[in-house]
Amino acid sequence: MAAPSEFLQYIDDKADAFIQRLADAVGIPSISGDAKRRGDVIKMAKWLNDQLTALGVETKFVDLGKQELDGQILDLPPAVLGKIGSDAAKKTVLIYGHFDVQPALKSDGWNTDPFTLVVNKEDGQLVGRGSSDDKGPILGWLNVLQYHHENKRPLPVNIKFCFEGMEESGSEGLDELVERESKPGGYFEGVDCVCISDNYWLNDRTPCLTYGLRGLTYFKVTVTGPGRDLHSGVFGRTVHEPMTDLIHLMGRLVDPTGKILVPGVDEMVPPADEEEKAIYKALDYSIADVQSAAGGEVALSSDKVEVLMGRMRNPSLSLHGIEGAFSEPGAKTVIPAKVSGKFSIRLVPPQTPEAVDPLVITYLKSEFAKLNSKNTLIIDNLHGGKPWVADHKHWNFEAAKKATRAVYKQEPDLTREGGSIPVTLTFAESLGVNVLLLPMGRGDDGAHSTNEKLDRSNFIEGSKLLGTYLYELAAIAK
Amino acid sequence: MAAPSEFLQYIDDKADAFIQRLADAVGIPSISGDAKRRGDVIKMAKWLNDQLTALGVETKFVDLGKQELDGQILDLPPAVLGKIGSDAAKKTVLIYGHFDVQPALKSDGWNTDPFTLVVNKEDGQLVGRGSSDDKGPILGWLNVLQYHHENKRPLPVNIKFCFEGMEESGSEGLDELVERESKPGGYFEGVDCVCISDNYWLNDRTPCLTYGLRGLTYFKVTVTGPGRDLHSGVFGRTVHEPMTDLIHLMGRLVDPTGKILVPGVDEMVPPADEEEKAIYKALDYSIADVQSAAGGEVALSSDKVEVLMGRMRNPSLSLHGIEGAFSEPGAKTVIPAKVSGKFSIRLVPPQTPEAVDPLVITYLKSEFAKLNSKNTLIIDNLHGGKPWVADHKHWNFEAAKKATRAVYKQEPDLTREGGSIPVTLTFAESLGVNVLLLPMGRGDDGAHSTNEKLDRSNFIEGSKLLGTYLYELAAIAK
Ligand SMILES: [Zn+2]
Ligand SMILES: [Zn+2]
Ligand SMILES: [Zn+2]
Ligand SMILES: [Zn+2]
Repeated sequence: MAAPSEFLQYIDDKADAFIQRLADAVGIPSISGDAKRRGDVIKMAKWLNDQLTALGVETKFVDLGKQELDGQILDLPPAVLGKIGSDAAKKTVLIYGHFDVQPALKSDGWNTDPFTLVVNKEDGQLVGRGSSDDKGPILGWLNVLQYHHENKRPLPVNIKFCFEGMEESGSEGLDELVERESKPGGYFEGVDCVCISDNYWLNDRTPCLTYGLRGLTYFKVTVTGPGRDLHSGVFGRTVHEPMTDLIHLMGRLVDPTGKILVPGVDEMVPPADEEEKAIYKALDYSIADVQSAAGGEVALSSDKVEVLMGRMRNPSLSLHGIEGAFSEPGAKTVIPAKVSGKFSIRLVPPQTPEAVDPLVITYLKSEFAKLNSKNTLIIDNLHGGKPWVADHKHWNFEAAKKATRAVYKQEPDLTREGGSIPVTLTFAESLGVNVLLLPMGRGDDGAHSTNEKLDRSNFIEGSKLLGTYLYELAAIAK
Repeated sequence: MAAPSEFLQYIDDKADAFIQRLADAVGIPSISGDAKRRGDVIKMAKWLNDQLTALGVETKFVDLGKQELDGQILDLPPAVLGKIGSDAAKKTVLIYGHFDVQPALKSDGWNTDPFTLVVNKEDGQLVGRGSSDDKGPILGWLNVLQYHHENKRPLPVNIKFCFEGMEESGSEGLDELVERESKPGGYFEGVDCVCISDNYWLNDRTPCLTYGLRGLTYFKVTVTGPGRDLHSGVFGRTVHEPMTDLIHLMGRLVDPTGKILVPGVDEMVPPADEEEKAIYKALDYSIADVQSAAGGEVALSSDKVEVLMGRMRNPSLSLHGIEGAFSEPGAKTVIPAKVSGKFSIRLVPPQTPEAVDPLVITYLKSEFAKLNSKNTLIIDNLHGGKPWVADHKHWNFEAAKKATRAVYKQEPDLTREGGSIPVTLTFAESLGVNVLLLPMGRGDDGAHSTNEKLDRSNFIEGSKLLGTYLYELAAIAK
């Protein structure tokens, strides 16, 4: 069941008004990580609630409690839940989005004020913080609702909404909400599938559906011994230097080709079979794309499938830095007393933090013992999350594929993301239903960077895609 | 020729007045590294000049030019040169000191205002910034001058003074001054030996003479490749990560026992013979002292001679830190685009930066090539200085030994310092005469740290030592 052509026409006709609404949303600097902006995040919650109720959605705010931030006790911004339609004959889809944004200052390197949406007529870019992450996609759903509301057309499916205002700051309070409302009698009871539009195409030309995310386990490895920072003139070659020990340890974690040296970690992941490799081969992405995105000719391999599997379906170990060592410009001859190396491992099924962490800890201890140092080793796990992979042949994905073909006349890329969107796993595990990531923006949108943009065509065609997806969802056999 | 007993008595009698003068000097916050305090450094130069002229020294200010600091063009504080006595029958000694100090704020952890000298009656400590480094020793010389001036006693030697106000900030302008004035017809013409009192005893109980300093060569090794910082979710196991390459390189520089892994560097230094080892064996310093100073039980060996030789007569390589990596608290999943490892090698004769640097550069390049990385390696040498070792059997040292025995009734430790005092080498090379380091303070004075102190007994007995040294110098056969 294709979307009605009058729906597609409506989205085109209203494009300017939709962009104006996006400008209104971007104009509210709803930065969840900045205590001074907490009022704006709450204002944004109210703005969104007003939009939803005006379009016929029954909503409610959910108080998520308090948090400490910058030494203040602050109210968490409320979650905004909504429902529209309760026809038992229709499928029910749960839609998630977040109305908070990353920090942005013009002085960070923005060409224009980050909280004034700039519509660039030449290249069609809508520039502003949150344009792509994640206000654009949320407003895509509002655009779909508006067509049905104004034209008094019934929606093809029942919809439940879950919008939060803390995604960019660890989604505080959301896991508990989702788990609670997913139980029998909860707000999300009866949900058949989930759709999240909060990631990006692999490139700037081919729509994609995303069926996997890597998990993470993040370690802080501290070596300490001296009671204070020492002068290398006085103590060099006199004491066990924590930096020397730490650098030796960190050098044994991953080799320059990306191979993880912690025994058992790489080995935990079965190799890809030919069917799986075919997915990567089919992706509209080249080594040149990888290098263009990285800003340098530094791909680990010239084999596209290998590089894409390295990002999407293999674990990776990155060394992020060292806390406590000399990190300023210039030349300081210090022997730091206590240094903490930070590294993390991106996990893929069947890896979990529970399975991987003991291997890491055992290995670090045994390698440290080999150093014969009198310093002390302390291992902290800072956080972790499981990887997620969905069945990309599920009817939820099939509906999205049909919708993509209908709107974009293209076969979508089937991607796994190298990063994490933890709420995805929470929905999948709490509801036990298929979760689809259906991005609106392009890979070069610069979500957490300066001059974040959403292309006008992604906003307008993306709104058509979201609406069409609902019609395909209604039509497809469970 | 012992010092007159009336001199020793005079120093004791005037102790309180001398401490008051030290309080006056400490009260001028002559921080050379702080542009806002430049006026105080110049004020301190004038204060010192007034003291010297009042005590019969013929002085002159030497303009050292300008410098840029914190974005401002500032006048360098003048050097204060002085001379007293021109008896051709007497030896001429050149005395160096510096009247600038390290920065200090009460909020750094001082128990009292750093620029108000606190006289602690219980433990005899004189607490204040510059008390030990280097105002106390300079005032020791003033105390000696005062006895001779007030009592109209001729000094046993001719003295030339060289006092600077930029020692804590790289001694800007001093090398040129020393080289110029050391030439025939220069201010320092006719100098027979040099005495510098600007270091410390090895411990808190035994006076020492210092005859060696290590040199230094400081490297910054940069690995870069990506055009910007990358997200480890998106790029982990996709690109050559600069941190991985850098950590592997840094791990190949020094092993956890302190052995330098750059081929040829350790090997350049001949092993100590039994006579030299005997010096270290004789030093009043134990492994417990090393560990107490380091604040942890982390000595590289339980053999005192080995540990002291590691500090004093062997090279050392310390890894100081990394610029450009994640160095804050918390967990950030960044792949830094450009990271610079900082390390330095302390050099001992016959090592020089000229001899060692090419070995380091060749080794880094060859180890980097083994990584097969597409990233780029950049090697910068930030600065370097040669080591210095003097003949500790020279009459200049013999005079100081006799003086120490006379004042302290102890045989002085004969030490080499692990750090550098670059002006030492400048004097030695420019004048071609023996340079003696004759410290006043103790090893626990906390020169560049909080709550810097000089013990009252070190100030008073130290003043006697400096005066007695002049008499022994006058008497000893060249
Ligand atoms: Zn987002
Ligand atoms: Zn985001
Ligand atoms: Zn000093
Ligand atoms: Zn100093």
